[in-house]
Amino acid sequence: MGYDAAFDKLKDECGVFGIWALGGDLDAANFTYLGLHALQHRGQESAGIVATDGKTLHVHRGMGLVADIFTAPVLETLKGGAAIGHVRYSTAGASHLKNAQPIAIQYSGGALALAHNGNLVNAEQLRNDLEAAGSIFQTTSDTEVLVHLMARARTEYRPGTREHLLAALRQALGKVQGAYSLVLLTEKALVGVRDPMGFRPLVIGRLKGSYVLASETTALDLIEAEYIREVEPGELVVIDETGFHTERLFTTPSPERSGRCVFEHIYFARPDSVLFGKSVYATRAAFGARLAAEQPAEADMVIPVPDSGVPAAIGYSKASGIPFAMGLVRSHYVGRTFIEPAQSIRHFGVKLKLNAVKDMLKGKRLVVVDDSVVRGTTSRKIVKMLRNAGATEVHMRISSPPTAWPCYYGIDTPNRQELIASSHSVEEIARYITADTLGYLSPDGLYAALGEDRSRYCDACFSGDYLIEFPKSKSQAPLRLVGA
Amino acid sequence: MGYDAAFDKLKDECGVFGIWALGGDLDAANFTYLGLHALQHRGQESAGIVATDGKTLHVHRGMGLVADIFTAPVLETLKGGAAIGHVRYSTAGASHLKNAQPIAIQYSGGALALAHNGNLVNAEQLRNDLEAAGSIFQTTSDTEVLVHLMARARTEYRPGTREHLLAALRQALGKVQGAYSLVLLTEKALVGVRDPMGFRPLVIGRLKGSYVLASETTALDLIEAEYIREVEPGELVVIDETGFHTERLFTTPSPERSGRCVFEHIYFARPDSVLFGKSVYATRAAFGARLAAEQPAEADMVIPVPDSGVPAAIGYSKASGIPFAMGLVRSHYVGRTFIEPAQSIRHFGVKLKLNAVKDMLKGKRLVVVDDSVVRGTTSRKIVKMLRNAGATEVHMRISSPPTAWPCYYGIDTPNRQELIASSHSVEEIARYITADTLGYLSPDGLYAALGEDRSRYCDACFSGDYLIEFPKSKSQAPLRLVGA
Amino acid sequence: MGYDAAFDKLKDECGVFGIWALGGDLDAANFTYLGLHALQHRGQESAGIVATDGKTLHVHRGMGLVADIFTAPVLETLKGGAAIGHVRYSTAGASHLKNAQPIAIQYSGGALALAHNGNLVNAEQLRNDLEAAGSIFQTTSDTEVLVHLMARARTEYRPGTREHLLAALRQALGKVQGAYSLVLLTEKALVGVRDPMGFRPLVIGRLKGSYVLASETTALDLIEAEYIREVEPGELVVIDETGFHTERLFTTPSPERSGRCVFEHIYFARPDSVLFGKSVYATRAAFGARLAAEQPAEADMVIPVPDSGVPAAIGYSKASGIPFAMGLVRSHYVGRTFIEPAQSIRHFGVKLKLNAVKDMLKGKRLVVVDDSVVRGTTSRKIVKMLRNAGATEVHMRISSPPTAWPCYYGIDTPNRQELIASSHSVEEIARYITADTLGYLSPDGLYAALGEDRSRYCDACFSGDYLIEFPKSKSQAPLRLVGA
Amino acid sequence: MGYDAAFDKLKDECGVFGIWALGGDLDAANFTYLGLHALQHRGQESAGIVATDGKTLHVHRGMGLVADIFTAPVLETLKGGAAIGHVRYSTAGASHLKNAQPIAIQYSGGALALAHNGNLVNAEQLRNDLEAAGSIFQTTSDTEVLVHLMARARTEYRPGTREHLLAALRQALGKVQGAYSLVLLTEKALVGVRDPMGFRPLVIGRLKGSYVLASETTALDLIEAEYIREVEPGELVVIDETGFHTERLFTTPSPERSGRCVFEHIYFARPDSVLFGKSVYATRAAFGARLAAEQPAEADMVIPVPDSGVPAAIGYSKASGIPFAMGLVRSHYVGRTFIEPAQSIRHFGVKLKLNAVKDMLKGKRLVVVDDSVVRGTTSRKIVKMLRNAGATEVHMRISSPPTAWPCYYGIDTPNRQELIASSHSVEEIARYITADTLGYLSPDGLYAALGEDRSRYCDACFSGDYLIEFPKSKSQAPLRLVGA
Repeated sequence: MGYDAAFDKLKDECGVFGIWALGGDLDAANFTYLGLHALQHRGQESAGIVATDGKTLHVHRGMGLVADIFTAPVLETLKGGAAIGHVRYSTAGASHLKNAQPIAIQYSGGALALAHNGNLVNAEQLRNDLEAAGSIFQTTSDTEVLVHLMARARTEYRPGTREHLLAALRQALGKVQGAYSLVLLTEKALVGVRDPMGFRPLVIGRLKGSYVLASETTALDLIEAEYIREVEPGELVVIDETGFHTERLFTTPSPERSGRCVFEHIYFARPDSVLFGKSVYATRAAFGARLAAEQPAEADMVIPVPDSGVPAAIGYSKASGIPFAMGLVRSHYVGRTFIEPAQSIRHFGVKLKLNAVKDMLKGKRLVVVDDSVVRGTTSRKIVKMLRNAGATEVHMRISSPPTAWPCYYGIDTPNRQELIASSHSVEEIARYITADTLGYLSPDGLYAALGEDRSRYCDACFSGDYLIEFPKSKSQAPLRLVGA
Repeated sequence: MGYDAAFDKLKDECGVFGIWALGGDLDAANFTYLGLHALQHRGQESAGIVATDGKTLHVHRGMGLVADIFTAPVLETLKGGAAIGHVRYSTAGASHLKNAQPIAIQYSGGALALAHNGNLVNAEQLRNDLEAAGSIFQTTSDTEVLVHLMARARTEYRPGTREHLLAALRQALGKVQGAYSLVLLTEKALVGVRDPMGFRPLVIGRLKGSYVLASETTALDLIEAEYIREVEPGELVVIDETGFHTERLFTTPSPERSGRCVFEHIYFARPDSVLFGKSVYATRAAFGARLAAEQPAEADMVIPVPDSGVPAAIGYSKASGIPFAMGLVRSHYVGRTFIEPAQSIRHFGVKLKLNAVKDMLKGKRLVVVDDSVVRGTTSRKIVKMLRNAGATEVHMRISSPPTAWPCYYGIDTPNRQELIASSHSVEEIARYITADTLGYLSPDGLYAALGEDRSRYCDACFSGDYLIEFPKSKSQAPLRLVGA
Repeated sequence: MGYDAAFDKLKDECGVFGIWALGGDLDAANFTYLGLHALQHRGQESAGIVATDGKTLHVHRGMGLVADIFTAPVLETLKGGAAIGHVRYSTAGASHLKNAQPIAIQYSGGALALAHNGNLVNAEQLRNDLEAAGSIFQTTSDTEVLVHLMARARTEYRPGTREHLLAALRQALGKVQGAYSLVLLTEKALVGVRDPMGFRPLVIGRLKGSYVLASETTALDLIEAEYIREVEPGELVVIDETGFHTERLFTTPSPERSGRCVFEHIYFARPDSVLFGKSVYATRAAFGARLAAEQPAEADMVIPVPDSGVPAAIGYSKASGIPFAMGLVRSHYVGRTFIEPAQSIRHFGVKLKLNAVKDMLKGKRLVVVDDSVVRGTTSRKIVKMLRNAGATEVHMRISSPPTAWPCYYGIDTPNRQELIASSHSVEEIARYITADTLGYLSPDGLYAALGEDRSRYCDACFSGDYLIEFPKSKSQAPLRLVGA
Repeated sequence: MGYDAAFDKLKDECGVFGIWALGGDLDAANFTYLGLHALQHRGQESAGIVATDGKTLHVHRGMGLVADIFTAPVLETLKGGAAIGHVRYSTAGASHLKNAQPIAIQYSGGALALAHNGNLVNAEQLRNDLEAAGSIFQTTSDTEVLVHLMARARTEYRPGTREHLLAALRQALGKVQGAYSLVLLTEKALVGVRDPMGFRPLVIGRLKGSYVLASETTALDLIEAEYIREVEPGELVVIDETGFHTERLFTTPSPERSGRCVFEHIYFARPDSVLFGKSVYATRAAFGARLAAEQPAEADMVIPVPDSGVPAAIGYSKASGIPFAMGLVRSHYVGRTFIEPAQSIRHFGVKLKLNAVKDMLKGKRLVVVDDSVVRGTTSRKIVKMLRNAGATEVHMRISSPPTAWPCYYGIDTPNRQELIASSHSVEEIARYITADTLGYLSPDGLYAALGEDRSRYCDACFSGDYLIEFPKSKSQAPLRLVGA
């Protein structure tokens, strides 16, 4: 079992990146490599880059981390001044190389590559229809539906032109529903699109004369690009030799309603990013301060669950006046291949990653700040570890409301029955994780600390208010073909 | 440069194998592994096996030799009582894993795997039409056209049934032209088909209660299956839980005309195979005997170019009374990865594989028997090697007519201008290869020795009489997508 | 260039681990695997485990991280109830697999494995002598000298006995000088030794009835072993079927003088370890508090250079009252294979690992706390990054004295001329790194915060007071043999 | 199980090659690569090359075939104008990379590489003595004893000089007994030595101004070097910047007695080599002719067991007047990794490599010519295969006397009890292999056909007349160290 699978966290499904500097002298694949490195936290299972020199699309995808997949000889094969890239997390079952992105195909309209962050809720029905009409799918990913829809699009334009591409893309997007932040590359253009609700982030940057698209601003920082703005929900941007173009592809259903994922603020995004226009670090510190006000505790020390709980813990400490300390040390050497020791040894999942600083915790009353609780298994182990280290009281504080509903818009959540908050009260959860007290941030407190109106956000994972209908089950078509 | 590329021989493109013993206790993948091993001479670039347990198709393909690709753990993943397999040779450009066969897809009709020996002459036009209608191709091989045609077929039957499969296959085959010996596997049936002309071989065997299909009988020998008969040109056979079925898919254009490849007798097939109903070894020995009558020579010794020239040289020796000797020794350790030494050393292509037995050849007049001459480069080096070893005269004898026309039906031949016999007389070729004399077997002599009428055969490589029209150029659509 | 090489830090050379539970039912290799995982920060270039079942020593060593080297099938080959392990950092030149440890040999005394943390200062002379007497070395490491000395030892005991082993070891140790914390394994015994000065740490733990030896207590924590005490400087401990034995191998030169490495407190050890009897985290926080007193600054925010600067920064913040924040975010996805982008892009060394949280730092006066400055190159880039993020003042504070002298006792330091503090004043260094001010902790402050007398420690890297003479140059014998 | 292991043949243990052209512009490693390729039949388990540019020895060794181990980038690392190489076969137990040759070490005399064909009969005793004196061995091969003896040699010359090297080598060789054809390389000289009996071959060639040493002349042919003569039994040759030197290292025990391995003529050497001054092909044909006279048979056809039986079968055919045919076809695609099919399928060992040409053999009386019978298992399967193909009579003829005694001088033979001829009469063997008749060549016939006196040869495998005493058992010291 890989380590991350053992750690009780939600998983983001992807990060995307694109850069267009054709005609200039930038090495686009190198910048994409750096961009993906900065987005690595959004997906560690596979990564890919497609680059173009204006004539051919050069593709490389692999399983694992960006730094391991893209060696110098590989990067040298990815020639040209424009490129897109993708990092991916996926559930175990479909974690095959052929599901790695960007998807790259050759069809009657030419060559095309596409990288997708999000999830299409009507993909299965569309796939069945396409197969019935004779399409043959290469992968089990929802994203492939988009390229088949594009390949079948009929337009008034000549195949291979930008007009044909955009017309085909509009037709395809008109049929899919769900969450998508897309970057798309041909020999002629770089395209970025965000779904009407804007579930997943996508930002625009400038690097000298070039344009950059990325899931988060931290990717702009690394390549020293300037942050311009978000791609708006429902907006399509095209960058080609004639410059930067934008169009409103969809009218947002209601002008007052969009669906940015509030969990990106809480956990997914890197603390150094500016997300949906706001500093992630500052937001998390504000969640912690608000949490201190809503859920105070008598304690000697505030400690975070590293690394994600650190900013909220600092905020809690400052607001409460209780001193902050790094009472849990995190090892960063646990890779995906870490194996479970033989059964004669107890389950080590959390201990491999975290260890308590015993001397400091002995005899202390602790506030422990984490960003979320999914199944509760990790929290339970952390509380046990702290008590073994001598803590006299453990007050768990969570910088978000209880996670009670699964996500269908691009986050890998367990089934509803596995989410402990879907069927247990806060008191019951506190008992399960063996904390002395447990306190969550309230939804109102969340938006107050965020300083935004709830109408801009999707918080279905807390509220069950789903903005787009989705199929009842998370079922997949039965696989009748195995291997390659 | 790989060794085989350096050796001046024509290349067969494929060998296929299939076995159906679902319900029995045979391990189909193991038998297919052995069958492919016996067919390895028909293709050394890639190999694949698809097996089924009646529920799922299990696929494994790889680059290289059968024995290297199919390790024990790999074979264990290929579960079930029915399987097909493929070995492939291909030109350098398209020698990618994704072009390896069997092709395996999942489409509306279910899961399907297909292995093809031959070449479809109208594949490029069909591919363009399919792409224009929205199909997305995964490979650059002509074979993929067939599965897309099947995926788009409309039939009166329920998808997933045997009736639907066969109806779709008939529709697809009705549209393609060229050479094909196919084996096809679903969870429900094993199918074998041979094109109306029957260019490439395909035989039926029985192993206990099971049926076997294979390109050559040597694959039956290895697994101790009994040889039954050829799949006839234009015949389709289906093997499933209800037994063995046959239908005549096409009427042969003219009942007196078929197009078995005569070069299979001369060079491609293994000498221990029974091909198109005749012993390959005996046929080659008869070619040699006839060659001795048509092209006698005063000499002290008959030596073959090993290994393929051996039976004809023995036949020549026996008919002429000139003693036979193995004057050239062949190394069998030259693999595909053998690299050319640095430029300070002369070209070693032939020397790495052949060496003359000097003591035996010194002062001798030699008849050297080979099966064919393609570009003439290898023959020239062999003559030089023999003279360096002390031979006083070298009389080259070829057990087939001059190869003057390219093949479009499944053999990898050079362009016409590279075939030395297309633009040079026998005397000119003799001069080029520096032989004292050069003699080819006549077409009439070939068929006389074979004991068959020419109307059963395709000999376009000698005669230019092509049985099916083909496109002017061997062009390929420009690749706009590189890598994976 | 690997990432770590780009980061301006000193490197520890090794971590060692050993466990003896022969006769019990513990799987020693699994525990060693976990122990090495906990010691991974002490060396990431190679790792190895030798296990014994009482009959044979089973060896596996590899390049890279513990979790990548020791897969489940590998661990299964390492059978038995006793084992030792090693993690290693080394300079680039000698970073070969054959230099990986534990060293494992077969000699007249039987089979023997040995893992070493430290550095023998007279290894080169001893090696020359041994080679002149006919010994053939397998590696370029100093440690191999020990096994050759043992192989040549003459004792009154029968080879293969424990008495012979210990006598040979005593003879060998009597000839070497320098730093060594050793664990040594035969089929019959586990041995631990620490040099008379005790430069490197080595602790004893108990796990149920078994004994454990480890470089740091964090390895005991992970396997839930109880910390007993340090192996004393100059002490040898033997664990075998008769139990636990100890002897004083050397009299410490002067009872009041030992040479524990003070830099282990400052940087090398994990913050959750108890080192030389003291909590590492608490010690570092005390260094920070003392630093605040000695080197105050007017500022809005205290930020650490993560991860090693965190405890001292928290200590500085608490003592000074200036708020603490994580103003630099560290990426943990930078592996050893991370390649430098093409030259069209500037040097990314530090940026790949650290990024500033711009929104938080803009317009702020910062105290930045780091543990040490080696060449100054990384500090200079960090200051630049903070100013680019909008910081108005940057006051660098270092929680140790200036590092001005190279280490010869097991730490990989640059040559003296590369250590910026060896030839520059604090003011000059401040100017070079472009900090507004720069302040180091004083030596007196260091020991005061530590609460220990200086006579227990080696601080040659600060003071130049070397406790053992060493050869003038760090030269290596010329390599006349390359490859394997 | 690898294929070759399944085939019932004796195994040669090695081939060696050396070239010295320092100062010229030859790329020595490339020539060595070609030379090893030509010697590949002498060992397929591992191969190695050590090259020198006069300053450093560059080493590369690997498991497998020459063409797979030495890729272009690897060859580029092997710089310089002088080199030695080695191909090795070994028994399964010790088939580790660390036992691959050339052995390359650095010792007080400098750097040294050594490649050995043969076997030292007193290696185990010498090794025990050396270990007792403190030497540490890296491998389990007998050859390593030589370098340890050299490392411990005391001479009057300065270490590093040619004089020291030769003096040390003379001392070492004075202590070992057995079979050795050695090539040895330092930065200053190439040395070749053959043991006093001359068991294994070693020849001298010239290539332009350079000298070449090789196990067989076929290696000279490939690089177009001229064959000069054998290194004589007991001769040492040195090639360095001062030219070619020779000395008689040992007086042959008796001037009339030497011990060239007669089995090299019968089976090991390539048919295109000149061995011990005689053409291998011509010798084997003469064995076949003599066999026809001694062991006639009434038959319709003479067929060889390919490839090694071919020349003798041609000789038998010519002498007997019975026509020759290639009735068994051999596959050359069976590599070492070929796995045994699952147990539901019968043992395929021989069938994977050989297949009968049924049509030709049906109803025929056959003489089958092979070079030797070891255990009899393969012969038995061949006879069965031929009868299944329809042969009415099978008369097995062996072109050597019965192999009844194991070899201790460099050939890997089974224990005596496994050699069928050690305990069975010819009639019993015939019955076991189910042949109608079985006939061996007589010892007198062998030497008559060879045209040499028996006093030049070792034929202990036939006669049991061992020329050098050897230890009773083939035992190895118990391995107490496993893995690396």
